[in-house]
Amino acid sequence: MNHPQTILTGDRPTGQLHLGHYVGSLRQRVALQHNHQQFILIADLQGLTDNGSNPQKISHHILEVMADYLAVGIDTRLTTICLQSALPALAELSALYMNIVTVARVERNPTVKNEIAQKGFARSLPVGFLAYPISQAADITAFKAELVPVGDDQLPMIEQTNEIVHKMNSLTGEPVLRHCKALLSEVSRLPGVDGNAKMSKSLGNTLTLSATEEEIHHAVSAMYTDPTHLRVSDPGRVEGNVVFTYLDAFHSDKARVAEMKAHYQRGGLGDRQCKNELETCLQTLLAPIRERRATFIQDKGMLLELLRQGSERAHQLTQQTLHEVKRGLGLPVLF
Amino acid sequence: MNHPQTILTGDRPTGQLHLGHYVGSLRQRVALQHNHQQFILIADLQGLTDNGSNPQKISHHILEVMADYLAVGIDTRLTTICLQSALPALAELSALYMNIVTVARVERNPTVKNEIAQKGFARSLPVGFLAYPISQAADITAFKAELVPVGDDQLPMIEQTNEIVHKMNSLTGEPVLRHCKALLSEVSRLPGVDGNAKMSKSLGNTLTLSATEEEIHHAVSAMYTDPTHLRVSDPGRVEGNVVFTYLDAFHSDKARVAEMKAHYQRGGLGDRQCKNELETCLQTLLAPIRERRATFIQDKGMLLELLRQGSERAHQLTQQTLHEVKRGLGLPVLF
Repeated sequence: MNHPQTILTGDRPTGQLHLGHYVGSLRQRVALQHNHQQFILIADLQGLTDNGSNPQKISHHILEVMADYLAVGIDTRLTTICLQSALPALAELSALYMNIVTVARVERNPTVKNEIAQKGFARSLPVGFLAYPISQAADITAFKAELVPVGDDQLPMIEQTNEIVHKMNSLTGEPVLRHCKALLSEVSRLPGVDGNAKMSKSLGNTLTLSATEEEIHHAVSAMYTDPTHLRVSDPGRVEGNVVFTYLDAFHSDKARVAEMKAHYQRGGLGDRQCKNELETCLQTLLAPIRERRATFIQDKGMLLELLRQGSERAHQLTQQTLHEVKRGLGLPVLF
Repeated sequence: MNHPQTILTGDRPTGQLHLGHYVGSLRQRVALQHNHQQFILIADLQGLTDNGSNPQKISHHILEVMADYLAVGIDTRLTTICLQSALPALAELSALYMNIVTVARVERNPTVKNEIAQKGFARSLPVGFLAYPISQAADITAFKAELVPVGDDQLPMIEQTNEIVHKMNSLTGEPVLRHCKALLSEVSRLPGVDGNAKMSKSLGNTLTLSATEEEIHHAVSAMYTDPTHLRVSDPGRVEGNVVFTYLDAFHSDKARVAEMKAHYQRGGLGDRQCKNELETCLQTLLAPIRERRATFIQDKGMLLELLRQGSERAHQLTQQTLHEVKRGLGLPVLF
């Protein structure tokens, strides 16, 4: 039997996690933890790269995200959850890698280019934000991760990481660092309930994992469907119809969804009925998550202790990588 | 009595230290250690910012520089000598500071601008080099240094550091970090033995602290004087005359040097005699340094142990600063 592959994944603690995270990554992580060595990094340092002047936003959400993880079923006996800022090796490896990556190279990174444009940084671009692909490479390589679950917009990050791996291994003269592969998510990005391709708290078009029964009801009621589907008997479109996108993502019975789609397309199936069925799915999914989350978030001491334990395990591993890199470069490891 | 002020100073281990370092900083450090809390940082990480592809150049010179320090009389009971790469707090503070400094701000730093031009980086500028003023700010603030001995070309670094101090203290809401002041060197930069304003190993115009008696003799013999001073009886110029610049820097009897200058200017004092007197000064200065250095460099284990002890002391102090900054930003300190 092969050894279980190492996975590194994580989130920037910029807010509570929502249905988009559930579909895009959390669900997958719960499954992956059974046959992989999975590390989940709460990336507070990366969260600070574009929130440098608002650190409380990041620090406040560390335990919120921890509670989200536990609530969806990430099991700390199977998955190591750790905090980026608690692992000095990550900053130290970043500092070493920064010397072998040019400014021109990170500026050319398509993901960084897009994000700089999106965030409207222009002349106010923080150095930390420019450097974050290097910091990500430090994260991935410190854990010797083989698989990194990403969306296809993040593939340039994997490419940049492997460039650094190649360069560092040639400098140290031995394969100290491990190349990594992207693990592309099967599900495409979940749109906001309003049909906007981007789901985000600031757009108010999302449902967090702690959404109440009422919030779920309201969100589904207001959900974008087919604006030309005026009467129940009219034929309706399922493409771009958020209710069907969500049914695809959350309904456990795929045959039932296919049947509903056909019915909707030929006419005779009302939006109300589709929404009711979707709401049932979401209420059923979120009720136990919400309950568990409410219990966890009341015990911050326990959350912090679990985070500490995971971070300590991660510290052992990442320090070992750091020491191997240092020795490879000829730098003394004094303690 | 006031508490002794804290000084942070150091060198990039890119080569053996030479007479320029002796005059510009080492001599001063030997004096300062008696009434200051002095930390000397062997800045290997900073050395790597423009030697990323040649790490052995840096790692090789760590103990060479350590031996230089001990040879000139830096006393590890009075001064803490420590290694930058052994202190994780420095990389961690850098990572935090990078988020509050823009790329435009570091690019505008006159020292960085000059060095980028000098080193001919252009499009191949390493991210680490662009970020090094931030890394220096991390060094200075981690030690809570009040005084930083610098040349006037480095004043923009002090300014940038104090900007970061101001911004971080406003984010944490309390004066966690300490503002620093430049301690300007009294002696202007020592020229190379060939008269070139820049003294460097690569130009071959320097004398290292381990220079042999013969090397000293040859260097002084070949030293640039006044090319128009052809006969002993001719009046000679002392401005730009490297022999007199060196006599100013190394002769203990200032009155004697003034007398020689007057004699040389009115004619009747030969270059040979001046050089003999300078050579005596340099041989007298360097003989015991060379001997002590030769003994130290043979005991790498002892050098490493002293560096480890100093780094451990520095580690305690810098970790404390890091934890204060983290707590100020609301980040958990897990261990």
